[in-house]
Amino acid sequence: MSETELREQAAHWWRTSICDIAPGRIAYRGYTIEELIGHISFPAMIWLMLRGELPTAAQERLLEAALVASVDHGPHAPSIAIAQMAVSCGLPLNGAIASAINTLDGVHGGAGEQAIELYDEVLRWSETKDLDDAAAGAIDHFTAEHGKYLPGFGHRFHPVDPRAEPLLALVDAAISEGAVGGRYASAARAIERVMRERKGKLIPLNIDGATAVIYGELAFAAPLARGIFCLSRAVGILAHAWEQTGRQDRNKGPMPKQFAYKYEGQPRRSLKQAP
Amino acid sequence: MSETELREQAAHWWRTSICDIAPGRIAYRGYTIEELIGHISFPAMIWLMLRGELPTAAQERLLEAALVASVDHGPHAPSIAIAQMAVSCGLPLNGAIASAINTLDGVHGGAGEQAIELYDEVLRWSETKDLDDAAAGAIDHFTAEHGKYLPGFGHRFHPVDPRAEPLLALVDAAISEGAVGGRYASAARAIERVMRERKGKLIPLNIDGATAVIYGELAFAAPLARGIFCLSRAVGILAHAWEQTGRQDRNKGPMPKQFAYKYEGQPRRSLKQAP
Amino acid sequence: MSETELREQAAHWWRTSICDIAPGRIAYRGYTIEELIGHISFPAMIWLMLRGELPTAAQERLLEAALVASVDHGPHAPSIAIAQMAVSCGLPLNGAIASAINTLDGVHGGAGEQAIELYDEVLRWSETKDLDDAAAGAIDHFTAEHGKYLPGFGHRFHPVDPRAEPLLALVDAAISEGAVGGRYASAARAIERVMRERKGKLIPLNIDGATAVIYGELAFAAPLARGIFCLSRAVGILAHAWEQTGRQDRNKGPMPKQFAYKYEGQPRRSLKQAP
Amino acid sequence: MSETELREQAAHWWRTSICDIAPGRIAYRGYTIEELIGHISFPAMIWLMLRGELPTAAQERLLEAALVASVDHGPHAPSIAIAQMAVSCGLPLNGAIASAINTLDGVHGGAGEQAIELYDEVLRWSETKDLDDAAAGAIDHFTAEHGKYLPGFGHRFHPVDPRAEPLLALVDAAISEGAVGGRYASAARAIERVMRERKGKLIPLNIDGATAVIYGELAFAAPLARGIFCLSRAVGILAHAWEQTGRQDRNKGPMPKQFAYKYEGQPRRSLKQAP
Repeated sequence: MSETELREQAAHWWRTSICDIAPGRIAYRGYTIEELIGHISFPAMIWLMLRGELPTAAQERLLEAALVASVDHGPHAPSIAIAQMAVSCGLPLNGAIASAINTLDGVHGGAGEQAIELYDEVLRWSETKDLDDAAAGAIDHFTAEHGKYLPGFGHRFHPVDPRAEPLLALVDAAISEGAVGGRYASAARAIERVMRERKGKLIPLNIDGATAVIYGELAFAAPLARGIFCLSRAVGILAHAWEQTGRQDRNKGPMPKQFAYKYEGQPRRSLKQAP
Repeated sequence: MSETELREQAAHWWRTSICDIAPGRIAYRGYTIEELIGHISFPAMIWLMLRGELPTAAQERLLEAALVASVDHGPHAPSIAIAQMAVSCGLPLNGAIASAINTLDGVHGGAGEQAIELYDEVLRWSETKDLDDAAAGAIDHFTAEHGKYLPGFGHRFHPVDPRAEPLLALVDAAISEGAVGGRYASAARAIERVMRERKGKLIPLNIDGATAVIYGELAFAAPLARGIFCLSRAVGILAHAWEQTGRQDRNKGPMPKQFAYKYEGQPRRSLKQAP
Repeated sequence: MSETELREQAAHWWRTSICDIAPGRIAYRGYTIEELIGHISFPAMIWLMLRGELPTAAQERLLEAALVASVDHGPHAPSIAIAQMAVSCGLPLNGAIASAINTLDGVHGGAGEQAIELYDEVLRWSETKDLDDAAAGAIDHFTAEHGKYLPGFGHRFHPVDPRAEPLLALVDAAISEGAVGGRYASAARAIERVMRERKGKLIPLNIDGATAVIYGELAFAAPLARGIFCLSRAVGILAHAWEQTGRQDRNKGPMPKQFAYKYEGQPRRSLKQAP
Repeated sequence: MSETELREQAAHWWRTSICDIAPGRIAYRGYTIEELIGHISFPAMIWLMLRGELPTAAQERLLEAALVASVDHGPHAPSIAIAQMAVSCGLPLNGAIASAINTLDGVHGGAGEQAIELYDEVLRWSETKDLDDAAAGAIDHFTAEHGKYLPGFGHRFHPVDPRAEPLLALVDAAISEGAVGGRYASAARAIERVMRERKGKLIPLNIDGATAVIYGELAFAAPLARGIFCLSRAVGILAHAWEQTGRQDRNKGPMPKQFAYKYEGQPRRSLKQAP
């Protein structure tokens, strides 16, 4: 193999469409960094890096609202508690953020991703059914496959999640402006209606369901709902890790030592009795 | 211990000044989430969560510029390569982000933090010396303690880091407006002058040194330079992880298989000869 | 709620059957640590912690062989490369191990887990079919659901994986002693036979398929194949991280800088043209 | 640059003395994997990978005892709690292990490493002083530099750590056999004596101090005390993660919801009042 072919192989191995970097030059998606710094917002930069193009003003506003809304949910959230405990073990901020972001997985961070998939199912069914029937069918199919938890709706702590309504209001405004299509908002509301009929009470949209409406309206692929949630939740994780940094706790466990845990295993026994 | 005392112990264990959450209510640093969503920017939210108060418009602009400037530096950056490799191993986006952010440690992510500490030393010395003498003394003291790499200056890839000048221009504008004091910008420029005299050529500010000027002017504690760098670099990490998600690579290693690595260990030997 | 009920709630939250710890006393699965230290092997301790009982001598030997066999596969393995790169970023050994172990996911670490599931399918089918027909059916069903890669067989680097045969020899010896049943070894060999017929050549067991035979014979649940692989691969990860610790590299990327990566994105453009 | 030089550059970038892998062949430190599987123990493999040579039987026994002794300390240990919480967030076992091992940092996992450094200081001082004076000097110097916590001694939960005495007994036996020199055991005991004099009561060796004696006697560099602790603690982390895997908890936080956390931040306020 010639030297040129070797170089091409290596270049292809690490190929990318995101950044073009040469000595003294950096460009993202074609735009030089000098043009970007101070001229686009952080949410617009996030959009550019993920999507390859700049967002419209309306798209930027909706993305920013979703980013602001998801930053934190306090020390009962495992990601937040983990960040604090990590700092008390001696980890610097990058390590605390890493241990915590890692847990934004299927149950803790994947709900937004699954909610988009649920909305997509409603929209697929709605090609041949009216919307509420489509929602009913999608709900049944989804829960049959994934279990009883419907992602995006209800909340074990909030009867009504206070983050949902402000987000949906922004979506409605964007729909009015013609900036987004409204299909995902309709799908979400259809699910709410069907669930209310079935349960006899409102199971309202939660933060995951509301941000999923936004990400769906903005045409983000479902896994990016989780990815963008990570960018947002990293802020709360960092804030709580920083707060813990000022304290003296060493090896902070989940509860004060006075709260003993229950041992429910084998009673005391001796190796001498072992087989 | 009474029930009340037990509850207070637990409450104290997980105390926080950041978020106040009750069923149906969420407030950050005293502001309800309904007031914040759609009304403050993501950088302003980051500032609020970390600092406890809202930023001025000028502070918000500078923080946003630093966040935009640091998002990515391409697949030769270990954090970016790791994110790609992680996805090819089957990790979802949160896991890829975690493995990568973890590496924004002392050498890869800590340079901004160390640059602030260096500027702080210059400023301390400058209380009793003129600025350039203070810079010289701080440089000598710092390199004696930490080794020859001066954080924030020079770049092994860019003769001039294209991200630094736009950031410093924004700082200068803010100084003119009286929005920031200018002490950190002066310290950084003094270091540049001293290094130029000593080396006979310019060793210019790099991204870490430039963002450190911003974080210093904005009065962020040094470790938060690293923390905020994590929030920014998470964007590039996510973008590259997402790009890799669309590919078929399985267990992508650092180089194509045709590039063998050199084994320089013990020659072949047998257990039978072993002691 | 009374104080007692509160304590019970907390105790139940963190209940465990694994360890019983009181001031001055530590016992695992009922055995005091004083009895265990110096009296049981590390693999026997691993078994005790995971299974709740001590292993027989034969079980211990097979587990130990699997642990020894999986420790490392060199710098082309993403987990190993990541560990090295992490250290060069300033991470201490625990952080390098963490970033690397995280990637032992579906593609890089999950193959053993999936191989057990495949063997389980063969064994289920074999209740009503002869073994080779069962293997054929299981292969077809598995690949239809999971894609063309059959976990546990073949290797993109080794025509024959040198780790497989020694492991299967140990399993055969254990079968002869009557220490294990042999069902999983039979299932694996049936798959090898069927694949050879279909492909016209041997697609031999690899390390994942061979250790999966061992874990299946030892009655470990499929996910523990991945968990135990993590315990083993941690050794290679640590060794390579430690080797890198002695070097001077800073921010070691995946390839030397002379190997540029290919930018295949948008050509240069200006914000002024942007919408 | 010629093709050969390019290949050499890449080969050098990923050079290693640990493993030699070619199609169909795997050797660690010169020994083929076929010779190792079933013929050496897991602790001997760990030693071989880290040290490059096989251990003596006595060295192997001491390493194994240290590995067995450190596996777990129950759900109050942050690493253990984090592993459980991670699983409840949907993380698979590799991810739970990663988030947890990451926290075995300066305070939670670094104590063994720091204890070796402390013993090294005692031994350096003892070249010109008698041992107890050396211990006193080293204690003073160490606490002056690192703060009041003496690594390796005392325990916030155990008046006497039940893991220490069995480990020291094994070290004493090895000293009697002439298998290890005994200098680190002497240093540790000198520290115990000096602390008892100063405090009026015994501050006994804990697990970190005892394993540090072993690692020191076995001539492991101090950071490897932390690295090997990770290999051991990974077992407890995996066991608790696996135990949690069988449960239904979703997003398990650090305490039951009935235990509210205390908010001690800004009272409620409105953006309208903000500057």
